[in-house]
Amino acid sequence: MNIHVLSLFPTMFEGVFQQSILKKAQEKRAVSLEIVDIREFADNKRQVDDYPFGGGAGMVLKPEPIFNAVETVAKERKPRVILMCPQGERFTQAKAEELSNEEELIFICGHYEGYDERIREHLVTDEISIGDFVLTGGELAAMTVIDSVVRLLPGVLGNSDSPVKDSFSTGMLEHPQYTRPAEFRGWKVPAVLTSGNHAKVDEWREQQSLLRTLERRPDLLEKLELTPKQEKLLEALKNKK
Amino acid sequence: MNIHVLSLFPTMFEGVFQQSILKKAQEKRAVSLEIVDIREFADNKRQVDDYPFGGGAGMVLKPEPIFNAVETVAKERKPRVILMCPQGERFTQAKAEELSNEEELIFICGHYEGYDERIREHLVTDEISIGDFVLTGGELAAMTVIDSVVRLLPGVLGNSDSPVKDSFSTGMLEHPQYTRPAEFRGWKVPAVLTSGNHAKVDEWREQQSLLRTLERRPDLLEKLELTPKQEKLLEALKNKK
Repeated sequence: MNIHVLSLFPTMFEGVFQQSILKKAQEKRAVSLEIVDIREFADNKRQVDDYPFGGGAGMVLKPEPIFNAVETVAKERKPRVILMCPQGERFTQAKAEELSNEEELIFICGHYEGYDERIREHLVTDEISIGDFVLTGGELAAMTVIDSVVRLLPGVLGNSDSPVKDSFSTGMLEHPQYTRPAEFRGWKVPAVLTSGNHAKVDEWREQQSLLRTLERRPDLLEKLELTPKQEKLLEALKNKK
Repeated sequence: MNIHVLSLFPTMFEGVFQQSILKKAQEKRAVSLEIVDIREFADNKRQVDDYPFGGGAGMVLKPEPIFNAVETVAKERKPRVILMCPQGERFTQAKAEELSNEEELIFICGHYEGYDERIREHLVTDEISIGDFVLTGGELAAMTVIDSVVRLLPGVLGNSDSPVKDSFSTGMLEHPQYTRPAEFRGWKVPAVLTSGNHAKVDEWREQQSLLRTLERRPDLLEKLELTPKQEKLLEALKNKK
């Protein structure tokens, strides 16, 4: 997959793109990550923003530099052009999976008070928000989306089991995990986990996963088709509460 | 505000913490950002993770290094200790505002398959998720929360008008913005914005903000107390649809 990120702060990406899974994914040639400095596509004065028509505080990103940058990167191809903005569609694991099937993606990261609306109307194919909060710019949101997409690409995660059982991939929150020591400051791990009885362990984990989802994210359960066994377990958990 | 971030990948933060608003906020001494390498608090073998009890793929973060790191950083103080995890409370602008009132915050960023549950039970005060998607680790989530909190600290944003009118701060999505040129590739800015009539501009913006929120995020409108004028406008917009 080829990913191009348009930003006014290209050095923001250095630490994140050169560590952990994103580093490995580039080494394995599963992804190529390019940072494009929007300022290089501005006019002579390198001006990328200007005052909003109609007045008001802050600056607005001008259309030309961003159109120029996207068109230079995309050439004749028609990749999806993703605008990171608080007004966009809420990013979810389903969207990560959808984007992981693309061959090429362009991300536009804004700053300041926003984008000239013509960028939204005539250039972008997707507007994505990572949540209902305000960030200084789109960079962290783009990194977040890129991390979650790239880890789904074939061959990126060492252990092929990992992406499947994560929270949200199953539709439920993950069960609690414990590791050594079996007793830490007097707090012991649940006995079932050290019993060696795999069927009991699986049952406990399924129950804990359901319980945690019920307690913290009942909205997720409404979207799931539970097995009859899970339904029964859920009823029992609800009655216990 | 003093922020400490516990991570296994401390260099991930370099680009983000040394740019844009986070850089300025540190220069203005509005915030001090410290990255703590969890590995320095591990045993002789620098082992921070181990296999999960009960079996399964992946590794789980051990309790000792994280307890040790938090207790070393916090000393006698009792700051909030925030675990970034997909099972946590969904991060919102309201939470950013709440956290911006604290004097000190500790963030724990996990990796691998998760945390030993005893960290969650006995060490952390808040569990935060930035959304329903899976990331490689908690670092990007922590950076996101930190960016949104720090920009709310007094004196950080140059223009004191900016934080108030952002999307979500008003409870509605922001209206479209336009800047020069007034005509770009044949696409003109709406005439009202170049009319010089400030009352008309304000009315147009309020209407567009309502319209955008109605189209994209009707859930936000349900939570708002609209003025009678806004109610009337909303009815008119709904009838037009």
